[in-house]
Amino acid sequence: MRQNALMFEFQVESRDGRARVAQFHTPRGTVTTPMFMPVGTQGTVKGVSPQELLDISSQMILANTYHLMLRPGEGLVKAHGGLPGFTAYPGPFLTDSGGFQVMSLGHMRKITEEGVVFKSHVDGRMVDLSPERSVEVQEALGADVIMAFDECPPFPAEREYIGSSLERTVRWLERCLTVKSRPEQALFAIVQGGIHLDLRERSLELTLPFHTPGLAIGGLAVGESKEEMYPAVAFTAQRLPDDRPRYLMGVGHPEDLVAGIALGVDMFDCVYPTRTGRFGYALTHDGRLNMNSSAPRSELGPIDPECDCYACRHYSRAYLAHLVRAEEMLGPRMLSLHNLRYLHRLVEEARQAISAGALQSWATTWARRYFKGSIPDWFSQAIETGARPL
Amino acid sequence: MRQNALMFEFQVESRDGRARVAQFHTPRGTVTTPMFMPVGTQGTVKGVSPQELLDISSQMILANTYHLMLRPGEGLVKAHGGLPGFTAYPGPFLTDSGGFQVMSLGHMRKITEEGVVFKSHVDGRMVDLSPERSVEVQEALGADVIMAFDECPPFPAEREYIGSSLERTVRWLERCLTVKSRPEQALFAIVQGGIHLDLRERSLELTLPFHTPGLAIGGLAVGESKEEMYPAVAFTAQRLPDDRPRYLMGVGHPEDLVAGIALGVDMFDCVYPTRTGRFGYALTHDGRLNMNSSAPRSELGPIDPECDCYACRHYSRAYLAHLVRAEEMLGPRMLSLHNLRYLHRLVEEARQAISAGALQSWATTWARRYFKGSIPDWFSQAIETGARPL
Repeated sequence: MRQNALMFEFQVESRDGRARVAQFHTPRGTVTTPMFMPVGTQGTVKGVSPQELLDISSQMILANTYHLMLRPGEGLVKAHGGLPGFTAYPGPFLTDSGGFQVMSLGHMRKITEEGVVFKSHVDGRMVDLSPERSVEVQEALGADVIMAFDECPPFPAEREYIGSSLERTVRWLERCLTVKSRPEQALFAIVQGGIHLDLRERSLELTLPFHTPGLAIGGLAVGESKEEMYPAVAFTAQRLPDDRPRYLMGVGHPEDLVAGIALGVDMFDCVYPTRTGRFGYALTHDGRLNMNSSAPRSELGPIDPECDCYACRHYSRAYLAHLVRAEEMLGPRMLSLHNLRYLHRLVEEARQAISAGALQSWATTWARRYFKGSIPDWFSQAIETGARPL
Repeated sequence: MRQNALMFEFQVESRDGRARVAQFHTPRGTVTTPMFMPVGTQGTVKGVSPQELLDISSQMILANTYHLMLRPGEGLVKAHGGLPGFTAYPGPFLTDSGGFQVMSLGHMRKITEEGVVFKSHVDGRMVDLSPERSVEVQEALGADVIMAFDECPPFPAEREYIGSSLERTVRWLERCLTVKSRPEQALFAIVQGGIHLDLRERSLELTLPFHTPGLAIGGLAVGESKEEMYPAVAFTAQRLPDDRPRYLMGVGHPEDLVAGIALGVDMFDCVYPTRTGRFGYALTHDGRLNMNSSAPRSELGPIDPECDCYACRHYSRAYLAHLVRAEEMLGPRMLSLHNLRYLHRLVEEARQAISAGALQSWATTWARRYFKGSIPDWFSQAIETGARPL
């Protein structure tokens, strides 16, 4: 086990309630948190080039261990000098452990104390994944932040199952740390426990002693309601170390970023902005705009006159709606770009609000417009809870 | 009829045999010929942004009247100030007349002296297209160069049919010129006649008296062999006015550009580079590279180390082959970009060779590598014919 805390220093610059702005140092550059990480599942953020990611101020990119180990194989990525050489994105990367995808994509999977055996969705062969193998693959991929191999139980799952699963996840964490060999990679542990606060407590109790340089909140946004999810986020985030980044995995609707930031979360990732873009939707401060509907087809203004992305600087809603109807590649490409830029801008606004000590009022103003007047209770409660410093 | 010759001046700068390098002035900028025009059928070059088109030195973009009149309708394009405002490509455009697409895409089409009635491939409604309507649509689209409404007979067609069709096409040309009202648009006539040199002669005889500021060679690359096509290109090109651009419609394989340039053609367009890119093929001086095959999957070098496109500057063949296999949008996008840049570079090399008085030797050296030693007779004959000045 090698974890180089100095190489991954996390410097909090300003605070507002539980929210904070920080500089997170990694070997491939310093990122400012809170941040949203675009997802490049197979070594490419769908439809968006590395230059475009830089243009819209992306910072850290997430890549999926599960997909890349199956195709093209981690050896080829390593032969390119790791993910930056392979994908041409020059900044920091984070890889997940593969555990989540085995559960959601693998067929005929069998989980034992040793690890997981599953049938590849690519070519049907049986594949083993274990804590040791996950670290081996993630070291070959060469991301700056790598994740502990964990189990993310489905929702709903039996309470008892979640309890035994999280204990195994901690034993898997220990095995990951034992084989980890590259000091230029930080391994983050993942706190599980579903929506059960006592199980979250148990997971924290077992996980925190490993003193990993960052920790993630896993096992959420898997089907539970927002009313069930946010108490678990609030409970877990406030018990995570203050001096290290907190990462809420797989979460990234606009309202989730605002609520999560208020509760002290620093890092987010989600396929949502690119996936909803491919389906023809554009994210805006007024909610999600359906470019498949008839209204945008005659609108000569941009998606958002305040947005500085290429699509908003160059195109009318009518043109983008035409591309979507005509099934032209530039349509999903431009909507994916805009949606990522929207989330980056949203997080930038949140950081400014934190620095100005005005997060709660900014979040409320934002939500009034986004939710068109009827702000859901879970959101108001998250903002209020976040405003109370620990 | 208004045709402003001064606005569309064509200045020949250097010659080598029948080939020439020229500056062609248009209201939206001066382009250097010979040139290849990327095809933006539905108002977007598939997978490539306007900024990328500029980055790879694209000059004039072709857009299709047939597609745009059916969807989104020319009125919407006009409301954006024409194609540059709609598509965000700031340079010159050329629109075809819609005639060719009616023949290839329209269902239940009926051709009369008046024009064509066909069933839209988009929504099944019956649509009329006539010389007058084609000009009306092309004036709304606002390209710099617009094309006469013509009939392109299929291959093979009865000699007699081609003969009567080309005479009707001349009557349609006259009707186009009668209704044309915008002096900032140049209308090019189209010479038909299939592969029959006497019919080409007849078409030229009837078409040249209209003194259009540019002329196209139509009716080729529709299924005939190269051996049948090139004598028709050579025959027609040498009889077109020397002081105006010659446009070989719908032609654009690398070998066609080199042979056509040698025979005195100035303008080309084809969907080939973007279409073959979407199918996973990369154009190179060594021929077409199949990225779906197994060899590139492990090659760490770029498609072409001499190419300056984004894909070649950033990506290995292995990465691009991975994108193609994984069906990631960035794959067809990068291959389309590379292939367009390849054709632009090929034409730039040809221009340099013409200026240096070395086109024949350059073309032969290029062909030896491209055809892997066995240069086809039709190609050698085209280059030799082109070397004999008129």
